[in-house]
Amino acid sequence: MADVKIRVLQKILNANDQVAAGLRAELTAAKVFSVNLMGSPGSGKTAIIEETVRRLNKKIAVIEGDIQTSLDAQRLQKLGIKTYQINTGPFGGDCHLEAAWIRSAVAEMGVRGLDLLFIENIGNLVCPAEFDTGAHLNVLALSVTEGEDKPLKYPLAFRVAAVCLVSKIDLLPHLKIDVEKIRANILQVNPQCRIMEISALTGQGFEPWLEVLISGC
Amino acid sequence: MADVKIRVLQKILNANDQVAAGLRAELTAAKVFSVNLMGSPGSGKTAIIEETVRRLNKKIAVIEGDIQTSLDAQRLQKLGIKTYQINTGPFGGDCHLEAAWIRSAVAEMGVRGLDLLFIENIGNLVCPAEFDTGAHLNVLALSVTEGEDKPLKYPLAFRVAAVCLVSKIDLLPHLKIDVEKIRANILQVNPQCRIMEISALTGQGFEPWLEVLISGC
Repeated sequence: MADVKIRVLQKILNANDQVAAGLRAELTAAKVFSVNLMGSPGSGKTAIIEETVRRLNKKIAVIEGDIQTSLDAQRLQKLGIKTYQINTGPFGGDCHLEAAWIRSAVAEMGVRGLDLLFIENIGNLVCPAEFDTGAHLNVLALSVTEGEDKPLKYPLAFRVAAVCLVSKIDLLPHLKIDVEKIRANILQVNPQCRIMEISALTGQGFEPWLEVLISGC
Repeated sequence: MADVKIRVLQKILNANDQVAAGLRAELTAAKVFSVNLMGSPGSGKTAIIEETVRRLNKKIAVIEGDIQTSLDAQRLQKLGIKTYQINTGPFGGDCHLEAAWIRSAVAEMGVRGLDLLFIENIGNLVCPAEFDTGAHLNVLALSVTEGEDKPLKYPLAFRVAAVCLVSKIDLLPHLKIDVEKIRANILQVNPQCRIMEISALTGQGFEPWLEVLISGC
């Protein structure tokens, strides 16, 4: 067995939950509403944050999760907001964010005076849903280009999301996609989910989404 | 510490590589060319296989990887081909496929007389790339709707792919996407990658892709 490399990953899930709960309490005390935005690669997460920053008159910061690059953080910095990049690449390319990493980012960047903190999770419809980040609200972005069946095929991500943003609806005229089927499939796995259809390109449907954020702030 | 649940995951990566190499040799001996198709949720993997089955006069079977549901296998069965569904949901919702699972599926379904075996991996641009499935060819589907930056943000998936199918190009007139940037970004992380632009909806660009499969069979 000497030539067999054994990698042992110890995951203390309860420990993550404890850190997450502590971080959430800390953010609540600081009056910072925090939103964990999840979704597939290319589901429109960064574009949604960009359009939200443009439309919402609040002090906003973003913690960007990526395996590699700081491309998204660079996009957001152009809007003049505070951003903090977490790259998981150096730590084995982890496909999700954990509460301890968010807590470190919050401590380093500082959240004093902020109204709203976005955590843009790693583009992945599987793993991020398994880890509480310490955010107040879990939001899932699902592009209409991804197809109607995704809630049934990746149910955990939809189950942990209080809000689902069905994004890129400006493309609907060019797709064979029935948004009502997407809605029905989301509600099948999570009857409590608030579903909002939006386009970050045109701004369509942003009002109800901004209301969610305003009522949280 | 009694109330702290510790989950220990032992990953013997070399063991997976050994199983994969054995399976590949077995498939070669059986004259079955095998293709591991990876990509994000909604990148068009199943649609690409459907259109390939319609156009290619070969005996084809598909092993479908999903966390939950057999929706994709049901779609493929309508084309009259043999399909085998692997659901990782009962095993903790694993976000990738491992060679041992493919070997079991191959043993159970049988591959005698087949020309081509597709392995449709779980929709995920991160984890599947870490595991050799035992296929002869790794192929990555990237929808043009996912954006130009994905090769830079998820480099491993592009590095292990010998062929990258840039899919859904019928949508290009409706997107602010530069396919040349996608190409340049893929080649930046994998200069050897063969890039093919296709639409499973219109059949555009399928000829070079079918040539790859024919030359492998």
